[in-house]
Formats: sequence, C-alpha cells, structure tokens
Amino acid sequence: MTELNETHDPALRSWLQSANDDALGFPVQNLPFCVFRRAGSTESWRPGTGIGDRILDLAALAQAGPFDGDAARALAACQGPDLNALMALDATCWSALRLALSRALRAGSPLQARIEPLLVAQADAEFSVPARIGDYTDFYISVHHATAIGRQFRPDNPLLPNYKWVPIGYHGRASSIGVGQHFHRPVGQTRPTQEGGTPVFGPCARLDYEVELGVFIGTGNALGRRITLEHAEDYIFGMTILNDWSARDLQAWEYQPLGPFLSKNFASTISPWIVTLEALAPFRVPFQRGAGEPQPLPYLSSAHNSASGAFDVRLRTELGTEQSREHGAPRATLARSNFRDAYWSIGQLVAHHTVNGCNLQPGDMLGTGTMSGPEPDQAGSLLELSQGGKTAISLPWGETRTFLQDGDEVAISAECVKPGYPRLSWGAAVGRVLPALD
Amino acid sequence: MTELNETHDPALRSWLQSANDDALGFPVQNLPFCVFRRAGSTESWRPGTGIGDRILDLAALAQAGPFDGDAARALAACQGPDLNALMALDATCWSALRLALSRALRAGSPLQARIEPLLVAQADAEFSVPARIGDYTDFYISVHHATAIGRQFRPDNPLLPNYKWVPIGYHGRASSIGVGQHFHRPVGQTRPTQEGGTPVFGPCARLDYEVELGVFIGTGNALGRRITLEHAEDYIFGMTILNDWSARDLQAWEYQPLGPFLSKNFASTISPWIVTLEALAPFRVPFQRGAGEPQPLPYLSSAHNSASGAFDVRLRTELGTEQSREHGAPRATLARSNFRDAYWSIGQLVAHHTVNGCNLQPGDMLGTGTMSGPEPDQAGSLLELSQGGKTAISLPWGETRTFLQDGDEVAISAECVKPGYPRLSWGAAVGRVLPALD
Repeated sequence: MTELNETHDPALRSWLQSANDDALGFPVQNLPFCVFRRAGSTESWRPGTGIGDRILDLAALAQAGPFDGDAARALAACQGPDLNALMALDATCWSALRLALSRALRAGSPLQARIEPLLVAQADAEFSVPARIGDYTDFYISVHHATAIGRQFRPDNPLLPNYKWVPIGYHGRASSIGVGQHFHRPVGQTRPTQEGGTPVFGPCARLDYEVELGVFIGTGNALGRRITLEHAEDYIFGMTILNDWSARDLQAWEYQPLGPFLSKNFASTISPWIVTLEALAPFRVPFQRGAGEPQPLPYLSSAHNSASGAFDVRLRTELGTEQSREHGAPRATLARSNFRDAYWSIGQLVAHHTVNGCNLQPGDMLGTGTMSGPEPDQAGSLLELSQGGKTAISLPWGETRTFLQDGDEVAISAECVKPGYPRLSWGAAVGRVLPALD
Repeated sequence: MTELNETHDPALRSWLQSANDDALGFPVQNLPFCVFRRAGSTESWRPGTGIGDRILDLAALAQAGPFDGDAARALAACQGPDLNALMALDATCWSALRLALSRALRAGSPLQARIEPLLVAQADAEFSVPARIGDYTDFYISVHHATAIGRQFRPDNPLLPNYKWVPIGYHGRASSIGVGQHFHRPVGQTRPTQEGGTPVFGPCARLDYEVELGVFIGTGNALGRRITLEHAEDYIFGMTILNDWSARDLQAWEYQPLGPFLSKNFASTISPWIVTLEALAPFRVPFQRGAGEPQPLPYLSSAHNSASGAFDVRLRTELGTEQSREHGAPRATLARSNFRDAYWSIGQLVAHHTVNGCNLQPGDMLGTGTMSGPEPDQAGSLLELSQGGKTAISLPWGETRTFLQDGDEVAISAECVKPGYPRLSWGAAVGRVLPALD
C-alpha cells in the first residue's frame, strides 16, 4: 500500500482522548497490531490493535461482528493466539480492516459505545510474540554497519566484494524470539588464548545488542515461484523492532565457515507491536544510492522502489543498569539511527529471498540486520560504539561499558515523525541480561 | 534408549508375511513412523507405522483404542496431521508405544484381526513431511567432507582451527523441506567473471546434492536451560535421511561473511520415514576418535557417548537421468558411506546446540551435514566426487556428470545391516531437478 487514503488524514481524531496524545504515539492513524492478554491472567492470547493507552480486543470485536465484507473477513481471522490467519489474507483485506477500524475509532463513530467495553489498558496487559514465526531470516542491509565491522577485521578493505550486489542474509533461530525477554547470559566456547591451544569455555564476555527492524511476511508464495520486486511489498504485513542479541566472542570462534550460530540463537527480542506497511505510507522516502554506487541487478530494480521504497523510521537505543535502576536514573541513550539509511529496501529483501524459488510463509520474519547510520554515534551495536571493546562508553550515572553486564537492560524504540502528522510509535523491544546459569 | 529389550529380539516374526521379508527392511523390529494418506485422495494426513509393505494407520488404531497406559497416551497423540504431539511426549511414552505395536504386530497377536483392516499398502500411499519442523539446523560433522571441501580452497590447511572443537552448525530453512520433491533449478547471482565486474544472473550451473541424516527432536527444552550430553539422547525422537541440495556457484558468491543462504534454501528433501532411536539400539557402535585427535571439552564428553554414541547406518546415493529412465536403466550408484564415520555424535549435537540456552522444540530437525567416508568413492556430494567439477563421472548408460542436469533424480537410501539381525530400511529421500523457471 503506497498511496495515501482517508486513514492517513492527519486531521483525524479519535473519540478516545489518549489516542490524540502525540506523546503516546498511538493515534488513529497508527493502529499497530499485537497479541495480548491481561497481565498475570490465564486468559487466551488474542490479537489487539493499539489505540492511545489502550488495546482494542479484536477477538472480542470479531464476536460483536460490526464490520462487513473484506473487513469482516479480516476481523474474523483475528480470533486465534497469533496473527498468522490475518497475515495469510491479502493486502486488500488488511486495508479493509484498517479502514473499518479507523472509522470505528474516529471521533463521532456510531460504534463508540459498542467498542468502549472492548478496550484494555496497555498498562494492564502482557504481550506475546504476535505471530507464529515459521522461519526467521536475518539480513545485513546497513552498509554503515557492514563497513564499520569490516574495518575492524580488514582496515583497508572493509566491504566484501559481494556486499553491493547481494542483500546478504542468513537463516536465524525462530524458537528463541520473544518479547520482554529476560535471558541468561549465554555460555560457550571461545577462541583458544594461544594458537593451537584448547578453547576457553565459560560465560560470554562480549555480549552485545543489535538494533534492527523485523519485517513480517503476510501472504506467502509457493515453493518455486519467485516474488518480483514489483509485487514484493504486497507480501509484507508490517514491521516491528528487533534486538538481535549477539555474543561476539562466541561468534568470532564459531562462525567460519558457515556463519553465526550459538552466538545469536540464545535470544532475539522484538517489540510487541507490528506497524502495518499501510500505516507507514506517509513516511515513505526515495530509495536512492549515492553517486558511484553500482546499480542493482534488474531483479532488484524498479521505479517504485527508487521513488518510495525506503522509510523514515527513527530508532533509539537506551541502556539501563542495576545501578541506574537503584538510583532511579532514566536509561541512557546510546545511539540514534534511521532506517532510511539502509542499503537495501524491504521490497528488495523479499525479491532476493525468493528469486531462487524459496517459499515465504505468513508470519515469517526478516530482520534487517544492525541499523547503523553514517556517523559514529549512530552505531547500532556496542561493538561499533566501543570500537571492538577498545573504548569504554561513559554512562551518566558514572558507570562505563564496553559490552553488556549482568542486569543491563536494553530498550530499542522506534517512531515515525513528520511535521503536520501525528507521531507513530512502534513501542520498544526491551530485554534484560540475567547472570549465566551453571 | 540404549538397552536392548524384547522389541529388539531378532527372532521376532510378524503375522504380516511381508514384514518378514528382509529385502523390504520393514520388520517388526523397525516400526518407523511416517505421515501419509491414500495417494490422490483428499483424506486427512495422519501418522502411520511402516510394517512390511504396509502402513499401519495410527489415527485409526487410536480410534480403536487397543492399548493401555503410556502406550495409549502415545497412540492418542497420533491423530493430527503431523507427529509433533507424539514427539512432545517423552522417551518413556515412545518406548511404551513401540512395545505395544511390537506385541500387536507379532505372530500370534490376539489383535491381528482388529489391525488387519487398518493396514494401507505403501504402494497406494502418498507421504507428507512427518513433522511440523519449527527450526531446521544443519551441522557439518563429517571430517572427511570438511577436509575434502577445505582442500579445494586451502590445499595445505584444509580444516579450520575450530573444526575439531566446535560441532560447526548453522540455521537452515524449514519451509522448503519436503518429501519426494520435484523442484525447479534455482536461479540467482554468481561471481562476476572478472574482478570488480557485474555478477552473472541466471540458472545455477553447479547444482549438487548432499547426503545427510536428519535428527528429529522429540521433547523440547525451555529457553535458557541447556540439555547435558548425559541426557541428550532422551530428547531425540528418531532420524531420517536428508538431501540438502546445494547450488555451489550461488554459494561461492553469497556465503561471505554470514554463511550459505539462497544456495541451500530452495529445497531440502527427506525420506518419509523416521526410524526411532530405540529401533537403532542394536546398531550402536563405539564413538571413538583416532589417536592424536583432541579430546572434546567436558560438555561434549561422556562415557556413554564414547561407548555407544555412534550408529552403524549405511548410506547409498543413486542417480537416474532422463536418459536412464527412457532406456529403462536402473539408477547408478554414485557412492556409499556410513554414519559411523561422523566426527561428532547426535548427542553432542544436542548438547552443543543448547549449551548457550537455545531452546529446541518438538519436531525440530538437525541435519548432520554431508556424510562422506574416508575414501574418495565414499563422498556425499558431486563437488567431492567430481573434484570441484574438474573430473566428470561416467554413468553406466554412457552419460557423464560433474553437476546435476535437469531431469536428474537423486535417491539417497539408508539401511542398518548386522549379521543375525533383520535388516532395517530407512526408505529413501528422492528428489528430481526440473528446469529453471523464468
């Protein structure tokens, strides 16, 4: 969904007052999806839409049956413990549901009285991974990140020859993706201290985060049938925030020749919220390579992609520690970056992933890879910010960090901001490091 | 299940005569699982057990309710479209079901008359992937394969320093795993013909197979809780045959720095049959490293693993072509190898995969990586047999091959053979290459 429609009208206001509070970022123009239940309850997990400081219970709304046509069909798919059934429909249905929800939640809606009882306070809710993620693929689409990391290994030649041609990606672990994760520091093997010696075994000493977005596939494709770039965005349901926690010392020892494995698959934390591609239409920006950059191969080139294939999404990474929490200090901002600086677009990721016939399925997630900006203080990982652990970062309450310590909590938030348009929040991917287990 | 019990008694015979035919390899001592329905029907997919030339319909048997206790509980879990519910139980339940099925299918069983109507001819059945595979991990545990491949890149130093310490693995694609796959030759990017040039785009020109076994996880572990080597085998339900098709030219261009991706995820073919770990007890062999090999780290060492952690499983790869089928020629045997030559055991794979807290789930599959033996004619891929495409292989009907051509069909079969014991067949992983699509 590229074009703006009535759901994007910046003048729209909701009958729910908190929806009109720009600080919250859940206006009637946003309408992100989640899966939730009342915290501490044994209620069924069910889909919801964020509006103001509330969640509209879509399973309950489906029972009430207020919509018709494609919107009703889409709403009927919102009754399971995940969003897969909704995702498995098509962009027409998703759009019809968005329009119906927008109209129902607008000031003056005749449905207000029926909907009000179906709202649950976000503060009273707990969240689940919103989709059953069959396969998780992680890409590497920030050229700034790839260059910064490459420079630590190959100062004179940081980027490998394939980088500007191939949207580099690999398969990740779906089972360990969660929301609000508190996970134990991973243990494992690291490089021997002397060549030919015995590897060291113990807790990871270089634990890091990675600031990413996660792209949720909606409609799938049959095995053998590629999705062309022209149609690629139609297969995308929406996006979330992803923290791809990384154990750098485990990674350095294990990753040759087949790539990262135990250094990544112990936990991956996402935001509970999926912002739909349609909601992001006002934040599209041209997707343009700098002068001197190679033109992508034809299967990765389209006029639409160049004109509006990128998205202006602001990312912020914050760190809290045991000490900051004891002192009641706010989390420290470590870096800010923007998704518009990515070297490949989300449409290109889908076209590339399927060009060989690989089948994507509803609920699959594609990570973008670490989103670092062109400036050093826009880096999306501690590996970059600390220059490979060589330069400690000072935190406002007096501590320093090169890599993460036990008790550290990382919160990656995202938002879309544009003059004259309500602010859209993506929530935050929040996770905390617990001590290693024996 | 390490110990032999009454289900392993080589003297057992079935009341079904074809079960006693050693050529078929489905005796009452085997009892492998599958998911099937009558070919061409719209029946529900359902679990079955192979016996002789038949399949015992376990969903129908569950309706008949002939068993008690743990066996009944396990059988009740055999009514869905996959084996995940059965896998999610524990080794005690799996073993109780095996014992009950063994007794029911033995000569003289009072259940014969009730069971006979529940048998379906294997020749009349079609098969599905027997489990919903949440995550697929592929390892690299044949030191002979790793050495042969490494030698093509680094003749003087073929094995990387981590190989003999880390069971090297990476995440693969679950969605494209199938049985009896006919798949289109993948297309994609390959290395530019001159340095700094534009990559080539088109159909893969170096399409290969890889001979592997697939280990199915039964019981899962919670995120953060490692499975120790001592208990690792209790989490394994059984094993199948796996062909991890590989596009070598795509792989060479894309795999740095994060590993294989589109070169592997277009198709992966398994046998319809899962042979349980318990059925394999008579085929355990010592797992011993040669003199001079490093001792594994403590988390990868146990007395049980050394005494009986390996399995004597014979693998055979056959190739048919359009021409051989036209001439009615039998498929040509390309190579034979044995799983006992693996450098890491299946218990070590589970212990390593979870040492960092990664959670395995029922139905997850772990590929072993290409199983090549110590001799050149025991290689598990064309890349090895053709020495990187340099030496063509002659086929009995006059054709030659370096890599796979359109129409080629690869069948990888496995069996367990031991004097005085009935032969156990694993069936075959059979797949065929179709021409590339535009």
